[in-house]
Amino acid sequence: MAEVAVVGLGLIGGSLSLALRRLGIRVRGIDRNSQVLAQARRRGAVSWATTALAEGSRGAKVIFLCVPVHEMARCARELAAVVNEETVITDTGSVKIPVMKIMKHLLPYPHQFIGGHPMAGSEHSGIGAANARLFRGRCCVLTPIPWASPAAVRQVARLWRRCGAKVIKLTPKRHDALAARISHLPHALAVVLMRAVLKDPAAAKLVAGSFLNATRVASSSPKLWEGIFMANRAALLASMAEFSTGLGELRRLLRAADTKRLRRLLRRAEIHRSRLDEGREGSRC
Amino acid sequence: MAEVAVVGLGLIGGSLSLALRRLGIRVRGIDRNSQVLAQARRRGAVSWATTALAEGSRGAKVIFLCVPVHEMARCARELAAVVNEETVITDTGSVKIPVMKIMKHLLPYPHQFIGGHPMAGSEHSGIGAANARLFRGRCCVLTPIPWASPAAVRQVARLWRRCGAKVIKLTPKRHDALAARISHLPHALAVVLMRAVLKDPAAAKLVAGSFLNATRVASSSPKLWEGIFMANRAALLASMAEFSTGLGELRRLLRAADTKRLRRLLRRAEIHRSRLDEGREGSRC
Repeated sequence: MAEVAVVGLGLIGGSLSLALRRLGIRVRGIDRNSQVLAQARRRGAVSWATTALAEGSRGAKVIFLCVPVHEMARCARELAAVVNEETVITDTGSVKIPVMKIMKHLLPYPHQFIGGHPMAGSEHSGIGAANARLFRGRCCVLTPIPWASPAAVRQVARLWRRCGAKVIKLTPKRHDALAARISHLPHALAVVLMRAVLKDPAAAKLVAGSFLNATRVASSSPKLWEGIFMANRAALLASMAEFSTGLGELRRLLRAADTKRLRRLLRRAEIHRSRLDEGREGSRC
Repeated sequence: MAEVAVVGLGLIGGSLSLALRRLGIRVRGIDRNSQVLAQARRRGAVSWATTALAEGSRGAKVIFLCVPVHEMARCARELAAVVNEETVITDTGSVKIPVMKIMKHLLPYPHQFIGGHPMAGSEHSGIGAANARLFRGRCCVLTPIPWASPAAVRQVARLWRRCGAKVIKLTPKRHDALAARISHLPHALAVVLMRAVLKDPAAAKLVAGSFLNATRVASSSPKLWEGIFMANRAALLASMAEFSTGLGELRRLLRAADTKRLRRLLRRAEIHRSRLDEGREGSRC
């Protein structure tokens, strides 16, 4: 029997499965969509596959829930019936407070649940876009509750490290605030920026580098992102408010033709953005 | 003697020179920086090179000004002394109203000046990042004045087409409004978005896809962009105001937890962004 079960074989679950398989770990693939399972089998991402969550998870040592945030509760209810006190459960959801709450209420052994979020992704989705190297050099955030099983934390951390990720631990609250700032906010901006093209069809002909880069994520799954936005609403609203303040300052600078401050702002952004590419300040943690 | 002179061998001028050389056209490279000229020679971007603008331009059939917008006036003054009524002058500046005004006032034959802006670029700058294919499939906007020489327009358009660009004609005003929306606005957003990292150093460790994409242009030359922002201030402020309105609407939707409208917004953005990639709505015109 396979040791690890991966529930949801989309971009993240598929990439994780591929990475685990390359390490020689047996992976049970679970997905509601049998065509996805067939593709996962063809790509060698799973050792064994089923559409039945409970049946497929029974007896697995570690279960990765790689489903959208709005499907976590359904999965937790089904798992509750089959897990034992040694089963380690973790997830890859983009928002942690709601997931931690769901698991605390629905799982029989919540100290065995270790919230997780690998900071990697792409505007492409699905098993077709999965790749075994997706997590290399990326951070994976774990958000264990204070009374989480240390052995479970170690086991999940070890699997992520073996997939090439660096593991850091944060509280769910801290994670959600950071995720809002660096992931959900840029997504919101991309969606709003698309209006620029929608309001003037001629603009679509001329868009190049900066616009295409800035809006790339807007082609991600609307359903997935509706779930993320709603689940992290408070933190996202806070980071949007912060961004609006910054935008307002830039508008004031421009209105006042304050070239000195404008130059300082552009220089600071340039210095720090260049550092991100060089990895000096992170980007790969 | 070379037929075409390219003034300013940065990313745009260097790429244009490389493209023209591949077509077998003789290119005189003119740049104030002799190291840049040496690199342009090594890369085969120029047939002949000089740091002297007036001397290098004398007798050229077509002169491309590929310098930052804030250096256009200085170049126009130097060119005024050496051009004749048959010399065609064009530019690649990101903003057209101010450039058209400068040329109208400073050049002896303003009907021979054809404003231009190839909608291509990169966050990288300089001759080192130049490539002959930069303009392939991209739009190049020309903004001739109504009494511009039709032969001059044809000549400039033909050269851009031979470099792989599609040529469209717009008024300077229309160009500047569109450029603000699709290029200067995303740049402004990237600069403001960098605050998210500056305000919380931990964020730098976690940034991935969407943040890195959205802020990529922020590592461009601050001096160049200060010039562009100031030169297109009114149109940029208008597009920032429009963006702020859109952002405000999204904040209201989220605050009200209006999932129906949120879903519609995300879907519209996804459909239109996917079309940009497929080229159905343009992106490559």
